[in-house]
Order: sequence, then C-alpha cells, then structure tokens
Amino acid sequence: MTRLLKVAAAQLGPIQRTDDRQSVVKRLIELLRNAHSQKAELVVFPELALTTFFPRWFVDDISQADHWYETQMPSPITLPLFDEAKKLGIGFCLGYAELTQDGERFNTQILVERNGDVVAKYRKVHIPGHETHEPDRPFQHAERYYFKPSDEGFGVWQAFGGRIGMMICNDRRWPESYRVMGLQGVEMILCGYNTPLQYIPDPTQDPLQSFHNALVMQSGAYQNGTFVIGVAKGGVEEGVDSLADSSIIAPSGELLAKTSTSGDEVVTATCDLDWCYNYKNTLFNFDRYRRPEVYGLITSQRGAIFT
Amino acid sequence: MTRLLKVAAAQLGPIQRTDDRQSVVKRLIELLRNAHSQKAELVVFPELALTTFFPRWFVDDISQADHWYETQMPSPITLPLFDEAKKLGIGFCLGYAELTQDGERFNTQILVERNGDVVAKYRKVHIPGHETHEPDRPFQHAERYYFKPSDEGFGVWQAFGGRIGMMICNDRRWPESYRVMGLQGVEMILCGYNTPLQYIPDPTQDPLQSFHNALVMQSGAYQNGTFVIGVAKGGVEEGVDSLADSSIIAPSGELLAKTSTSGDEVVTATCDLDWCYNYKNTLFNFDRYRRPEVYGLITSQRGAIFT
Repeated sequence: MTRLLKVAAAQLGPIQRTDDRQSVVKRLIELLRNAHSQKAELVVFPELALTTFFPRWFVDDISQADHWYETQMPSPITLPLFDEAKKLGIGFCLGYAELTQDGERFNTQILVERNGDVVAKYRKVHIPGHETHEPDRPFQHAERYYFKPSDEGFGVWQAFGGRIGMMICNDRRWPESYRVMGLQGVEMILCGYNTPLQYIPDPTQDPLQSFHNALVMQSGAYQNGTFVIGVAKGGVEEGVDSLADSSIIAPSGELLAKTSTSGDEVVTATCDLDWCYNYKNTLFNFDRYRRPEVYGLITSQRGAIFT
Repeated sequence: MTRLLKVAAAQLGPIQRTDDRQSVVKRLIELLRNAHSQKAELVVFPELALTTFFPRWFVDDISQADHWYETQMPSPITLPLFDEAKKLGIGFCLGYAELTQDGERFNTQILVERNGDVVAKYRKVHIPGHETHEPDRPFQHAERYYFKPSDEGFGVWQAFGGRIGMMICNDRRWPESYRVMGLQGVEMILCGYNTPLQYIPDPTQDPLQSFHNALVMQSGAYQNGTFVIGVAKGGVEEGVDSLADSSIIAPSGELLAKTSTSGDEVVTATCDLDWCYNYKNTLFNFDRYRRPEVYGLITSQRGAIFT
C-alpha cells in the first residue's frame, strides 16, 4: 500500500528588524505558490516565521516586546496567506510568537488543513537559552524570558491522510519529543527552527551545528519510524548567522531533500506514509520490544543524579 | 581540566561453530596485548565474545544449548584472559551468555577493573528477534528464546576514573537506554554487538545497517554528553555476514576511531572524560532544560496507542 503526501520545506532567509509583517507575508505567499507549483499538498514554514528572532535583544519591560507577538491568528495582516492557501487548496504549518488574552507568551506553531481550518496548535516545550539579561554575550538568546514552556506536551493529529505531530527548534535535540509522539503513532513531524551558528556557552559546538541538526532529526525519525520535516530561518539576520539545512527525512533516517542556500528556498519530497510501517511493525514494534519497566528515571527525575 | 582514559575497541572477526573457547580466549588475549601495547587502559570486547552467535539456530530442547552458556566467570577456560589482564594492569569489558544457578539465561556483559576485580555486570534489556522457531528464515534470530530480558535496567558505575555504563547490541537503538544512563551522569557507555547485515523482516533496511549503527550511537552520545564505545563481532560467521564498524564516539557525537576491517582488530582513542561537561553543563543541562512533566507516555505505556 502507499499513502502519498507531497510535502514542501519552505525555508526563509533572514527577516531583519525593520522588515514589516506585510513584506514577510508576501514572501510566505511566494514560497506557498512555489510549493504549490511543485504539487506540494503541505508546506512547512519555520519557527517565528513572521518576525526577526527578537529574543536576541533584551528589554527590561516585556510589554515593550508585545509588538513581536500575535494576539490573533489569522490576523488582518496574515489573512492573505490563509486566503491564498485555501484558494490553492494547499495546507501549511506556521510558527509565530503568541500572546494570549491571559497575557501568556508562547512560541507557537499551527497546522492549517487544505480547506483553511486550523486543525492543530503546538506550543514549544523545551525552551533553550537564558531567563535574564546576560550583557557579556555578543547577542542574547533570552527565549526563557520571552516564552513560557508549554505544559500541553506533544500531540499527534489526524490530518493530511496521516498522523501529524509538531515540535519547534530545540525540541528536536531531545529524544523524548520524538518518543512521546512515536507512542501516539506519529507518521510525520513538522519542526521549524532558528539556530544561530554561534553557541555562546560552548564555542566548540559551533562547527558542529550542521552535523548535530542532521544527527538529531535523522535519529529521531529512524527510532520512531516517522518522517521529519525540519525547516530553518537561515542566513545572517541582524548580524547573527543562522543554520539553514532545511530537510525532509524519511522513516529510515535517510535525507530525501535538503536546501542548498540560506535564503528563501523550497524543497519538496513525495512521502509514502506507509513507509513508517517498515519500522513500526518490525525492529521498532514498540509493544513487542520496549521495556518501560526499566525507564522509570526518565519521568521520575529531571536532572542527572549521581549516587 | 582533563581526565584522560585511553580506551580500545577490540573487534572480533567471526567465531565459527567448531571454534573452541580455548582458541577464542587466545584471540582475546592477543587483542588485549595489542591494546596494551598501544597504552590502552580499558579494552572493550563484543557481545557473546566467547562463542559463535548461537541464536541463529533453534533447538527444541533448550538444554541442548547449555554448552553455549557460562556458568561461572572466570571459569577455568577464561581465567587466562583475567590473569593476563591483571598482569598487564589493563581493564576489560566482556560479553557472554550467562546461565545462572537458578537456570535463568541472560545475554551478559561484565566490566573488569585493572586490578582484576569484576566491578560491574549488565544483563541485556532489549532482546530483539523472535521467541519461536521460524523455519522460513534462512537463519534464525531466536534471542527471545535463548535470553530472558533483564529487569535490572541500566546502571552506571564509578570505575576507570569516570562514570561507566554498559549496554548490549539492540539496546543501542533505543534512546531510553542512553537516557537512563545519562540521568545517572554516565560518561562512557560500553556496547558490544553482533548485527547480521541481512534483516529478514524488512530487507529495505539491509543497505542501511552501517548508517543506522552510527546514527544511533552518535546521537545517543551527543544527546547525553557521553562517550560511546561500540564493538562488533563482524564478518562472515557460519555463512551470515555481520556488521563490523566498531567505533569510539565522543560526547560531541563525533567519530574518534573506527575499524577498517571485519576481522580481529584494535582501534584506540584517548578520551578526555571532562569533554562530557561541554554538553552536560550547557545545552543538555538536564536539570535546567528537561521537561519530565510532559514525558509521561514514555513510562506509562509500552506500545503506540492511536486515539
């Protein structure tokens, strides 16, 4: 059997601080049309796809940052993207900063079906970086100041003829993210990211960013028998160079497509969702082979404990 | 700071059915001396290093297989290996089939310190393959008939100046194995394996064996900030070709050394155990960044549940 889903990774180049949302939405619509012209049915945009990566600056009064967040989705400014997608009959996944009516701030990603319905919302679980201003850094990574870690966890939704999950950026480095979705039968994980090439706390990791990005997504795909679509906002944004390497990864862990630039770029692949069963029904038949009896520490403790 | 430990991956080529244990112990001693001549302090041998991979044959009465198991360690036949190691002041890790006094059968690995003391024993948790005779296969993989899955889980031991963990073969494909050790501060994981290149349930995986082996060990190392030493019994054993690719992997996930043959071969690397802290204290500071609140499914259910 085959269940084919043609998916597009729609990478964005940098969004500078002065680029307004109208201009960004215009770029997203261009990428959407490009993906549609290649017969993609689902197009995946990056994390925080509507603005520059604003956690690189600190503001003492967080309300001064309110303008980076969305309070409704779609909004008048983003509606043209939704309208165009619905007109073309193409679905999409979009990351943005969310400010709720209760004043909570999340790093959020939504999944929009081909009929225009928002069918799923995911809020980032693993928030990296730091909570307070660290003036010695050349640039901040204050995500833990700007975003609350979601307690809703990782869902899997029936959509696009398969079982779709979502995660955002740093989530992809944690095997638990993939596994919690794998235990819900996920067949395709959509993941946007913004990853500076310079990791201030440990410069020895800088030359390994591309390797680490591929390593975690390819192993997460293989170990759970799922497709993974990783999509970057890449290139030099406000002086900070970020990883591109957007890619479409098979349940075998193999790379099916990868961008070759760090700018706006679309790559596509036709994904047979039934490929997942080659792994889910054999080597990684969880019900037959997993041993949760001895996994207790994974949920009973947060940090490492030395005895 | 640096805490240097020179480790050797001592790969074995095939052990045929008619090869007696004396001849195998002789090969192990040769590898041990080779490792010692390269100034290694710890040498890692493969899974089931004393015999051929006997789960490839089925016997109706399991007691007919008793001769493949060890009932004591060291035994008169294996004692020369222990004696030689103690004489040279080199430690080792050895895999073998264990038959306990209670008649329980485990796939076991022990860690022997430089003074000759057996300081740790690990029994395989994730037993792959099948429970019953499957006569349609060209060869059996009846590990689930021959070995009981251990309920003791994954330990970490203070030895060789660091925190050492062990796992065996199929354990390396499961991110939970590494994570349970990571949560105990593991700095080096020792893993022997026997991996046939032909995976009967899904031949599409055959050409990917080398890729998958590297992928899981490199990601497990990186995601837990630990060295991983993977050691094969490789080559054509009783007509079944098995993966070699023994390797020493850094906490960065990078490959430090890898065998180039599928026969008896030693590769070494000097491992700075303090390298682990580059990861454990930054990106993978578990106490700061893990989210066990949303990992519940990992321990509350075994198989995938579709809702």
